[in-house]
Amino acid sequence: MKLYGYFRSSAAFRVRIALNLKRLSTDTEVVNLRTGDQSAARYKSINPQGRVPALDIGEAVLIQSLAIIEYLDETHYDPPLLPADALGRARVRALADLIACDIHPLNNLVVLTYLKRELKVDEAAEKRWYQHWVAEGFAAFEAMLAGSGATGRFCHGDAPGLADICLVPQVFNAQRYDCPLGRYPTLMRVFTECMKLDAFDRAQPSKQPEAATIA
Amino acid sequence: MKLYGYFRSSAAFRVRIALNLKRLSTDTEVVNLRTGDQSAARYKSINPQGRVPALDIGEAVLIQSLAIIEYLDETHYDPPLLPADALGRARVRALADLIACDIHPLNNLVVLTYLKRELKVDEAAEKRWYQHWVAEGFAAFEAMLAGSGATGRFCHGDAPGLADICLVPQVFNAQRYDCPLGRYPTLMRVFTECMKLDAFDRAQPSKQPEAATIA
Repeated sequence: MKLYGYFRSSAAFRVRIALNLKRLSTDTEVVNLRTGDQSAARYKSINPQGRVPALDIGEAVLIQSLAIIEYLDETHYDPPLLPADALGRARVRALADLIACDIHPLNNLVVLTYLKRELKVDEAAEKRWYQHWVAEGFAAFEAMLAGSGATGRFCHGDAPGLADICLVPQVFNAQRYDCPLGRYPTLMRVFTECMKLDAFDRAQPSKQPEAATIA
Repeated sequence: MKLYGYFRSSAAFRVRIALNLKRLSTDTEVVNLRTGDQSAARYKSINPQGRVPALDIGEAVLIQSLAIIEYLDETHYDPPLLPADALGRARVRALADLIACDIHPLNNLVVLTYLKRELKVDEAAEKRWYQHWVAEGFAAFEAMLAGSGATGRFCHGDAPGLADICLVPQVFNAQRYDCPLGRYPTLMRVFTECMKLDAFDRAQPSKQPEAATIA
């Protein structure tokens, strides 16, 4: 398998965590989002959407981080990233989607670039935009964690899974944009638990080989 | 079951299609997004995120349209909304997420409201924003459909599923915002096929009871 990624892409970060939890190793190729590798014809022939991550599994190239992670979970059973019961899976997928659909897409590099280039939004307003969507989403995420007996050491029970995989990269992004995080004690407790695990720690942006040369 | 929705919410539209395909009926409650029902304490006690849809299944309230649809698919097998093979599921989920993560969140009512209120974006620039994300996403979606032998009468094979469920409401939205759609012949052919089915037709915004009184 070959993972096309970028150290700061939080969607690629999610897939790196999932691969680590599953104890799977892949070849990797850096797609430098700052220099436009993702829009080059070569990469578009791999992923027509021109985004990362993409996972080449030989018989196909998989795209979209959540679809990739569900595939890994279906084809490599141990450890499971989703609960065994349908209701638990619905809760975990809802937590994951809350981040993957309602926070991250708004704060993606392509969107921030559009705000600056097309809408002439200045740095302060860009930061407010970023912080707004994090605050909206994290408040709901916190309420869902704090209000449910299903929350354990991690977002759902005592083993890490898909919701944690989405949460951790989003917290990294929030910290980069100075988002106040004191209002989300449960969410931050889970984040801290996750970061004690090697699978999460090794996946973080600063520990990717390209971090030293690109940043 | 009780579905909290709104006729124009494309996430609620997705769940309506899935329920129709599964031949499930529910009670419904309209959450009027234009008058702020979604932010009232009563609704926030049902869905802390203050968004639609939410599906009350008795033992829990499910949120996030894709998580709800996966739950319905896991608990009501016929007809399946995802392919039987892991690779097919990865393709269908990627197509669904391309819309649910990379187009729809950017053109959501809350985002358009933020653009106008906070960033003072005028109507023409709002429309360009809307059309930009549809064009980016639909170009990739079209390439994925046109470039794959797995595409059939519908997005994946000859039966409607999760990708079609996400595609149809997004085309409705694109039409509302005058997005040029001639560049996406495969995508539009699938849309037309879907709309021949009663399950899709009955779910469309104009056929919801509240359409007459609210619009």
